[in-house]
Amino acid sequence: MKVDFWFEFGSTYSYPAAMRIENLAKQRGIEVSWYPFLLGPIFHAQGWKDSPFNIYPVMGRYMWRDVERVCMACKIPFRRPSEFPRNGLLAARVACRFSKEPWIPEFVRAIYLANFSDDQDISSPETVSTCLSKLVVNPIKLINEAQSLESKTQLRKQTEKAVQEGIFGAPSYLVGKELFWGNDRLEEALSWAEKHGA
Amino acid sequence: MKVDFWFEFGSTYSYPAAMRIENLAKQRGIEVSWYPFLLGPIFHAQGWKDSPFNIYPVMGRYMWRDVERVCMACKIPFRRPSEFPRNGLLAARVACRFSKEPWIPEFVRAIYLANFSDDQDISSPETVSTCLSKLVVNPIKLINEAQSLESKTQLRKQTEKAVQEGIFGAPSYLVGKELFWGNDRLEEALSWAEKHGA
Repeated sequence: MKVDFWFEFGSTYSYPAAMRIENLAKQRGIEVSWYPFLLGPIFHAQGWKDSPFNIYPVMGRYMWRDVERVCMACKIPFRRPSEFPRNGLLAARVACRFSKEPWIPEFVRAIYLANFSDDQDISSPETVSTCLSKLVVNPIKLINEAQSLESKTQLRKQTEKAVQEGIFGAPSYLVGKELFWGNDRLEEALSWAEKHGA
Repeated sequence: MKVDFWFEFGSTYSYPAAMRIENLAKQRGIEVSWYPFLLGPIFHAQGWKDSPFNIYPVMGRYMWRDVERVCMACKIPFRRPSEFPRNGLLAARVACRFSKEPWIPEFVRAIYLANFSDDQDISSPETVSTCLSKLVVNPIKLINEAQSLESKTQLRKQTEKAVQEGIFGAPSYLVGKELFWGNDRLEEALSWAEKHGA
């Protein structure tokens, strides 16, 4: 049984999902595949030049309060970042290039905590390097590798694949062809994997 | 303890919320106040001339599948309406004008079932009258009353109040000033009412 977890490092609701998915999936014996992608190109394609939470400030105001409540309920730390959405391009390239490495889940959580708990600039190589430094021997080498033409293409293709799969927001989960969207749907996506055993 | 339930008859996710709220609230000893309103003017104000699920078809495609799954999980009937969103103006005027009547919860559910289970045109006085006929003696009299200038103004003011409360979508719940949005947040809104006893 497996679930594909599609996430964007700038996305608020991806944060609690990323913090919770590995444990919840383990408890049910479900394997998680990690699919970082970029929402920017997807939003642009439908005419949004910014996060909808910035374009529609009434919705944005609600979202910040809601995410705060959600994180409190999940018992994960949360501080509203001073910049939103933060550019997760570099971190996404790293996560995409090394998505099968055993340290990926921990790296993903470290980046999310940097953004949504510690208000750090996750677009900077320094932050990404710090997040990597507890997990790998040579962070700089990996960061350079993640910025190769091949790695850039890999992430671009992954974002194109997201679109092909009908993904329009983050976090999303795919169990076979069955799509679930939102932190709120994590448990249902896992239940679907159990029942329909993809 | 009380919760204000804000709903729009054309809204898909309002349907399971409207079907579930009375029983769930009763079990916890929470009183529900019924606040029909119109999403149309709110969408228009932010530049949408249609439901976002029609404007953004990829999101719309997901929504129809998701609502189907949600209704299956809640064990309520669902058939995708042949028209979306349906115009709930008349039904909303009735529900607004008579919101304190004991038959309101049942009337609201009857309209939602007509729309999302029986694919009926809820904008027509005939459908609204049929929904009323099992609950009141003289449906036509009530429908006429709901179309008085006073009743029209009442619904318009209620929609303005929704905007003032920060409501941007349906269903929404207010517990005091605390706002919750979506069928997914029904249980949390009720828990908030219990804990913070508004």
